[in-house]
Amino acid sequence: MTKKDIAGAAIKLHKKLGGKITIEPAMKVKSRTDLSLVYTPGVAAVSSLLHKNKKLAREYTIKGKMIAVISDGSAVLGLGNIGPYGALPVMEGKCALFKTFAGVDAFPIVLDTQDPEKIIEAVMAIAPVFGGINLEDIAAPKCFYIEEELKKRLDIPVMHDDQHGTAVIVLAALINAAKVVKKDFKKLKVVVSGAGAAGSASVRLLLKAGIRDIIVLDRKGIIDATRTEPHKKELAKHTNLRNISGGIREALLGADVLVGVSGPGLADATDVKRMAPRAIVFAMANPTPEITPEEAKKGGAMIIGTGRSDYPNQINNSLVFPGVFRGALDHAVTAITDEMKLRAAKNLAALVKRPAADKIVPDPFEKGIAQAVAKAIK
Amino acid sequence: MTKKDIAGAAIKLHKKLGGKITIEPAMKVKSRTDLSLVYTPGVAAVSSLLHKNKKLAREYTIKGKMIAVISDGSAVLGLGNIGPYGALPVMEGKCALFKTFAGVDAFPIVLDTQDPEKIIEAVMAIAPVFGGINLEDIAAPKCFYIEEELKKRLDIPVMHDDQHGTAVIVLAALINAAKVVKKDFKKLKVVVSGAGAAGSASVRLLLKAGIRDIIVLDRKGIIDATRTEPHKKELAKHTNLRNISGGIREALLGADVLVGVSGPGLADATDVKRMAPRAIVFAMANPTPEITPEEAKKGGAMIIGTGRSDYPNQINNSLVFPGVFRGALDHAVTAITDEMKLRAAKNLAALVKRPAADKIVPDPFEKGIAQAVAKAIK
Repeated sequence: MTKKDIAGAAIKLHKKLGGKITIEPAMKVKSRTDLSLVYTPGVAAVSSLLHKNKKLAREYTIKGKMIAVISDGSAVLGLGNIGPYGALPVMEGKCALFKTFAGVDAFPIVLDTQDPEKIIEAVMAIAPVFGGINLEDIAAPKCFYIEEELKKRLDIPVMHDDQHGTAVIVLAALINAAKVVKKDFKKLKVVVSGAGAAGSASVRLLLKAGIRDIIVLDRKGIIDATRTEPHKKELAKHTNLRNISGGIREALLGADVLVGVSGPGLADATDVKRMAPRAIVFAMANPTPEITPEEAKKGGAMIIGTGRSDYPNQINNSLVFPGVFRGALDHAVTAITDEMKLRAAKNLAALVKRPAADKIVPDPFEKGIAQAVAKAIK
Repeated sequence: MTKKDIAGAAIKLHKKLGGKITIEPAMKVKSRTDLSLVYTPGVAAVSSLLHKNKKLAREYTIKGKMIAVISDGSAVLGLGNIGPYGALPVMEGKCALFKTFAGVDAFPIVLDTQDPEKIIEAVMAIAPVFGGINLEDIAAPKCFYIEEELKKRLDIPVMHDDQHGTAVIVLAALINAAKVVKKDFKKLKVVVSGAGAAGSASVRLLLKAGIRDIIVLDRKGIIDATRTEPHKKELAKHTNLRNISGGIREALLGADVLVGVSGPGLADATDVKRMAPRAIVFAMANPTPEITPEEAKKGGAMIIGTGRSDYPNQINNSLVFPGVFRGALDHAVTAITDEMKLRAAKNLAALVKRPAADKIVPDPFEKGIAQAVAKAIK
């Protein structure tokens, strides 16, 4: 289907469905006896029990299986700040995928506020219902603060998927790509375009995985020690070891890897030609990548990945988030740690038995993806 | 089953289910094409549409079908203030009944705050997801303020079910009871024990329905003009026309109807004997009524209703709330008005073709209840 066909078909499908998830009772209620067990008076016994020991809520209520997918709509897909109503179809879709890919119950919450403190308050207020919080499509840099605060204050796992889901799949893809191009993973020279949620978290996880030479760019160019914004300053501390200045052209000289998580129009074939031989290009902006696969190929890239389903190597966090929360629920973890994310990426990479230039990540419908990720989250 | 048997069976069932509702995708996602329609890139077209016109969210997202069942756990069943975890099984049960009885999707939200302003803020924050708000088991008097504020500030219907669901079913039951005892409905002398959520709203709706002689009692006795708390003062303005003082014994002298929405131990057979001939007693506290049906009968009551499923005439708001929100969603109403509630009560009463002493309200599993109520909500 063309882009326009997909848009038209999506609008039609959404109108037909009127919401992409439904609520179903977990049991039939067909008699007065059923009613007395599910509702009053029987439910009072369960309520009393949980009042005395709230930890039992994981066993006796939906808290043991329910994830909240929460957004303020401030940074949705490639669409930007489109608010809660614009965000709702995306969050619903995510909930549908949670169940489809990992059997996880998830409910979408879009917020009528974009104030960080109010977002935190709202999430804290509704947290008793949920076994985990998936933050989604919240703009940087406030997403960092919101996630950190919620992690501190809540005793259930909180993960901003744009950050960590993306970081895990980028790392998984890069592990296999390095094998294909026969380069030492830890010695890869990596350029990351984008210092938002996805870029920052990917850089941090790649560093954790042992890569040392990373250059990060934002709209102003290469991030260096002269930056003053707190999270850019922090990035500068651990990146740009060779202390390079300039823009994408300067950054790409001799680089092994380009990770694009910024937006269309980043580079062309001439830029890619400046990279080291057997270059790896992940152009992940959706729906329009930072550089088209055709152009990257013209520039000599050996491995090309995008966020799209119509090219090989779809590097999409839908391979990650269902399994992360499946594991978090199954193992009752209270936080998603860096070690878990590293293990998840390795497990994902290992699912591809014979990595090749057009096969560095699993296909979303392959069996065992969520389980492989879930195993890592404990 | 005995009370103890029911409690044991309920605990067992809840542990087995691990949550009384589940989330299901509204469609199968089995191919890359499905994925591109439900999620990225197709969903972007829907998101853009809703960003431009948020009113379309009712047609394209779960907002058109989803009700929030919200509680702070401050006044749960007969258990009192047992907090959000204690409240969660009740709210889940309610969501299961919403779907079972009226095909309404409903999701439970229990709040980790009991501060009225914070409750209002939290509900406002998550409101974009929902087509209606069912407030539940929130203590009086703050429940009045919270409901009023939310009704003012939101453009979706908000109903505190402990108030209005109860009021509607009490009115429906009384319409039929008056027929059975052959008394003029509007001339009934009514005593309401309890000036909390259920009592206050029942009084207001009975007044709207044309009953003039109502006496209300709280823990301190008959409410009269000397009261200073705002909502008691307001009740006093419209009740106790004969300006009676004292307690339940004084109130019951010559009364046609006793509505108990307070708690066990209110009255005995001797008290009921002071009532007018062919007395009507609704003892609705759950699980232990204000007066047992046996004792009320001994006192000469002709019609006796309780909130329990093991006696005739179960006067329970589960006959009301599913239909109210079914109607609110179907007719896209923005508020549940007194006129709608009056019509709903009349429709419910009319479902009982031949009212009799042991049959003044429909059985919860009779067909057409939710539809009869829904018809009234427009």
